[in-house]
Amino acid sequence: MTIKALAFDIFGTIVDWRSSIAREVDRFLAEIGREDVDSFVFARAWRDFYQPRMADCRSGARPYTPLEELIAEALDETLAANGIAPEGLGLGRRIHFVHAWRRLDPWPDVVEGLCLLQARFPLVALSNGNLALTMHLARHGGYRWDAILGAEVAQTYKPLPRPYDQAVDMLSIRPEELCLVAAHEDDLRAARMRGLSTAYLHRPLEFGPDEIHLPEGDWSYSADNLRSLSEELSGQG
Amino acid sequence: MTIKALAFDIFGTIVDWRSSIAREVDRFLAEIGREDVDSFVFARAWRDFYQPRMADCRSGARPYTPLEELIAEALDETLAANGIAPEGLGLGRRIHFVHAWRRLDPWPDVVEGLCLLQARFPLVALSNGNLALTMHLARHGGYRWDAILGAEVAQTYKPLPRPYDQAVDMLSIRPEELCLVAAHEDDLRAARMRGLSTAYLHRPLEFGPDEIHLPEGDWSYSADNLRSLSEELSGQG
Repeated sequence: MTIKALAFDIFGTIVDWRSSIAREVDRFLAEIGREDVDSFVFARAWRDFYQPRMADCRSGARPYTPLEELIAEALDETLAANGIAPEGLGLGRRIHFVHAWRRLDPWPDVVEGLCLLQARFPLVALSNGNLALTMHLARHGGYRWDAILGAEVAQTYKPLPRPYDQAVDMLSIRPEELCLVAAHEDDLRAARMRGLSTAYLHRPLEFGPDEIHLPEGDWSYSADNLRSLSEELSGQG
Repeated sequence: MTIKALAFDIFGTIVDWRSSIAREVDRFLAEIGREDVDSFVFARAWRDFYQPRMADCRSGARPYTPLEELIAEALDETLAANGIAPEGLGLGRRIHFVHAWRRLDPWPDVVEGLCLLQARFPLVALSNGNLALTMHLARHGGYRWDAILGAEVAQTYKPLPRPYDQAVDMLSIRPEELCLVAAHEDDLRAARMRGLSTAYLHRPLEFGPDEIHLPEGDWSYSADNLRSLSEELSGQG
């Protein structure tokens, strides 16, 4: 098996959404005088409120809707749950807050690690984030994809098959020649079902500081950071 | 009017397809002992043979087919027109020859120019080339797009409206905030019809050494190279 390209999950795998969002939430809550709300709980609730919306898009109960729209709806829901009326905030401030998801910081190994890997492999974003979100995240973080695929280009959310199949198809390679790199096993399982190779990237803080998570699956590759992954893939590409 | 992102045509605008293909054709003709064929005429014929195939995809006479497949079909037609039986060449050699279109060199100003522009604007490829072709061209040339859109993602060829509209939509900006950079006025005209801003990039060798071409349209910007364009766009982005 020869790997010819790598595809990457983004949220949790490349960027540390949890502490980045909590930081922006802190700033926002201070601005509106609501320091009583816990910023990590707010961040978690925000994410929890957009998940069922994605599920509705997956099931067909709702047509595909770009992630940033779901994030904006979920923000209003999170605000309301904390007794904050969204309308009172002004559209500009709400857009800026929704765009906090474009300003998530990469994990510390990402810029160097992607650079090492990119010298040998085309690197493709394969995220549930819409294209603009994924693109701005990369510009914010100081790295760059060779191409952005994923939910918006496929018009459907992972782990449904189409984003994986479309990436293989558009890269004009065979499924096993594309390796998905992800910190979440449900994503890797879905990729493997479509014939892709898999690399589990261990992100111990992705599930919060208190939740210990060890991989259960038997993945093609497994690494603690992107430099190690690059070494594991030596001889490939 | 504020420009928030730039979209680029590729063939002729970013890469010098004519001399790059002629160089590869030269090598190929020498290998098969057919130095009697003029490599620039062969290159031009190859391109001429894929144009009507794209037209069939535009008209709906044929479903959307990625450019590299049309290029492969057109190669066989060009070979046959020169009395060379495609079947006799072997599949590996034909694939390598079709992939000559992934090895087109950028014009001399491209690497520096895109770097200057990319510091201020997201840069998006908006080409009729399929995604793999566009991606490999960038890796070959030593530059990188923030995102690749265009014919394959839109599943239809420029100058039909969908590739332009989809780019605006996926970038989540207004049409006039996206500026198409191209060396061909039909492309710019189509972009302007969809509300995009336009930048004419003068590529005097794009139409062959003997064909003089001066822009007729009145474009938002006009430049002789990407460094000049970057200066014209100062105050933007």
